[in-house]
Amino acid sequence: MTIKELLLKQKENAISEGLKLSIEGWIVSNRGNEKIRFLTINDGSSISNLQVVAKNEDIEKFSISNISLGTSLVINGYIHLTPNAKQPLELILESLTIINSVDEDFPIQKKETSLEFLREIPHLRNKTNLFKCIMLIRNSLSFEIHKYFQENSFLYMASPIITSNDGEGAGETLLVDDENKEYFFKQKAFLGVTGQLHAESYAQSFKKVYTFGPTFRAENSHTSRHLAEFWMIEPEVAFYKLKDIVLLADDLLKTVIKNTIQNYNDEMNYLDSINPGLLDNLNKFLSNKLTIIEYKDVVEKLKEFKDQFIEKDIHFGMDLASEHEKFLSEQIIQGPVAVINYPKDIKAFYMYQNDDNQTVAAFDLLVPGIGELIGGSQREERYQKLLDRMNEIKIPIKPLQWYLDLRRFGYAPSSGFGIGFERLIMYVTGISNIRDAIPFPRVAGQIKM
Amino acid sequence: MTIKELLLKQKENAISEGLKLSIEGWIVSNRGNEKIRFLTINDGSSISNLQVVAKNEDIEKFSISNISLGTSLVINGYIHLTPNAKQPLELILESLTIINSVDEDFPIQKKETSLEFLREIPHLRNKTNLFKCIMLIRNSLSFEIHKYFQENSFLYMASPIITSNDGEGAGETLLVDDENKEYFFKQKAFLGVTGQLHAESYAQSFKKVYTFGPTFRAENSHTSRHLAEFWMIEPEVAFYKLKDIVLLADDLLKTVIKNTIQNYNDEMNYLDSINPGLLDNLNKFLSNKLTIIEYKDVVEKLKEFKDQFIEKDIHFGMDLASEHEKFLSEQIIQGPVAVINYPKDIKAFYMYQNDDNQTVAAFDLLVPGIGELIGGSQREERYQKLLDRMNEIKIPIKPLQWYLDLRRFGYAPSSGFGIGFERLIMYVTGISNIRDAIPFPRVAGQIKM
Repeated sequence: MTIKELLLKQKENAISEGLKLSIEGWIVSNRGNEKIRFLTINDGSSISNLQVVAKNEDIEKFSISNISLGTSLVINGYIHLTPNAKQPLELILESLTIINSVDEDFPIQKKETSLEFLREIPHLRNKTNLFKCIMLIRNSLSFEIHKYFQENSFLYMASPIITSNDGEGAGETLLVDDENKEYFFKQKAFLGVTGQLHAESYAQSFKKVYTFGPTFRAENSHTSRHLAEFWMIEPEVAFYKLKDIVLLADDLLKTVIKNTIQNYNDEMNYLDSINPGLLDNLNKFLSNKLTIIEYKDVVEKLKEFKDQFIEKDIHFGMDLASEHEKFLSEQIIQGPVAVINYPKDIKAFYMYQNDDNQTVAAFDLLVPGIGELIGGSQREERYQKLLDRMNEIKIPIKPLQWYLDLRRFGYAPSSGFGIGFERLIMYVTGISNIRDAIPFPRVAGQIKM
Repeated sequence: MTIKELLLKQKENAISEGLKLSIEGWIVSNRGNEKIRFLTINDGSSISNLQVVAKNEDIEKFSISNISLGTSLVINGYIHLTPNAKQPLELILESLTIINSVDEDFPIQKKETSLEFLREIPHLRNKTNLFKCIMLIRNSLSFEIHKYFQENSFLYMASPIITSNDGEGAGETLLVDDENKEYFFKQKAFLGVTGQLHAESYAQSFKKVYTFGPTFRAENSHTSRHLAEFWMIEPEVAFYKLKDIVLLADDLLKTVIKNTIQNYNDEMNYLDSINPGLLDNLNKFLSNKLTIIEYKDVVEKLKEFKDQFIEKDIHFGMDLASEHEKFLSEQIIQGPVAVINYPKDIKAFYMYQNDDNQTVAAFDLLVPGIGELIGGSQREERYQKLLDRMNEIKIPIKPLQWYLDLRRFGYAPSSGFGIGFERLIMYVTGISNIRDAIPFPRVAGQIKM
């Protein structure tokens, strides 16, 4: 039984006094005197610990005073219920086996050190309360996303990581080759920046599909919102139009966040305690209808506040900067907002061209604290329109002929979006740097382990 | 409602005569005459189709005779139950909207073409029955694996894809860099060949963790069992020893295969029909205890059959060739078998060194038709033993000092294994080439889309 299961069962009054238990884990704290000592032990199943009580001769017998933080051990004992105490139960020690102690230079202390320092030791920072929380929430969000899609008849498909397509033609890409740099794949090969194009081909037979895998950008920017390697979730649905896919994004987010708050109560409370208002804001999002607003109306609204921005030239056709996106969701809407129908010149070639000849059926979902969390669109289903647009903005046709061809073989109008998984983790945990949302962050000029 | 849901509900007698239904999908066949026509439609939720019946004037009204295979459409109608027919129900057409037809050069025909030909069109082969089956089974196995781990308190963690560690020091690796090839990460960066080393660091605080992500090998071999890009599942469990992790592998496999057979009955029956014996063999595995055998005993057994092999020199210390592995599981054991305690010189540096000074606590799980499906081990927990072994076989210490250091900070003995996901798909679907187990296969010298 894990500590998480133990505490859940206790809440249901399913744990009885005297229950014999064996717990494996790591020491979080060790305090007391010669007559009684309290060991706190964590097994990684939850941020919550189990308190172990050792008394009298056992203290000397098992050299308990000397056990330091981080030591791995196995403790046998029995449960003592303490309904009036802070912890509802404790384990009375009967025997203890130390598995491995820690050397003196163990960098994790009870008092949490700076996030910057912890980023230098990604293999050890997971032993802190904060990173236990973040990674448990990450685990929950990931599984809830899979569960949501499976329960809604989506097929999980693996878009390729290594690709001969240069993605959206926009971003900087990373190249792949073998040691000899002689084109292992007989041509230039890239790390994928999106799985969407490939997912579209699968949506044309499975109707509802999604990818969930790593994607890459060779961005040289060092912001708190960018990684060179990040995970992305990309649903793609045939027979869906823009409005359908925006509703899907909203429902998906609400479902996975609601279930995560429910199942990881202790972790969410801990995160709320270091970032007050976190749970309030998430719950507000859960109980409100998503705001959907036209890009052209956003421009008009932002103009009213132009003095507040570094970029004051607000006009139709501009790409919204991060400051505009944040202001919109944080100050004007005060919650998540879907902006729809962007000017075609600031969006990707494959998006559906609206009748106004100016905009495409795209949407971005912006959230407070982060800005863009989701980007998506209805895809251009008309072969000739797509081809013309590619020629117009000089996207090479040949490598994407297969993608164009999908339109010639029973293509049903298709829509989809991409969620930056680490940005979702930031939104739900309230952490402010994306490097803390992934176990081993990769950014330009830096790679640890 | 998807066709899969419709047929499931029908089995529970929860579909009534006359139920109005709207179905979106693609035409699989179109036969009949001027008075009555039968359209078969598939929506990707299952390999099973829905038969749509059009009669009399509707045939001309909706130009039904001209609808060709692959066309996407929406059909409205009502259910007619046909309990005595091959299909238990059909849809009587009321109206029909064609979304998109197919051009004449559509390469997917009702009669399935060769697998080799289909490998040339990975964006379209998913429209065949076979690939629908394979990808639905792939989807099922993936979700069942996540579900199994989540239900057993494992944390899903993302090991990095881009790494500065050259993996096990063994395999050929692929390098990553930006366009300028000036070390985007300020040092050599590789595509990971395993997530294990990083997973070990997480097992040291979460106890039970697993990865599920793409891994890479720059292998130049063109076998039916190797890909340059494949997905791997790697559980890692602190406080587990060799025997525990072998039992975990067995239980995991049996659970995910059992649930997949149950939930994807139609697909498994289809696969069994083109590969007779498939279901019998899988069911035999499910109902039998896993055979566990010492490597040294395998060598003795194989010696008895040495005339059957190309490599006849069978001796302790040799690496088993694929022919030996297959013979062991197919002919001698006649089912999956775990071989344990291999000679240390043919296994990785991080494996636990047994007291005999000759072997390490490793295991390979071999299955009929494929050979190695899983490889794993108990890890060397003793700092000095690990360091000595690394020096002995000249593994550079500096880049792996962090990995060594885990042993200095409360390291609990840890064990784990890796499952090649596409090999698992081969085993469960009975397909014989790994390039058919992944949507867009990548091998040396070849990259499509």
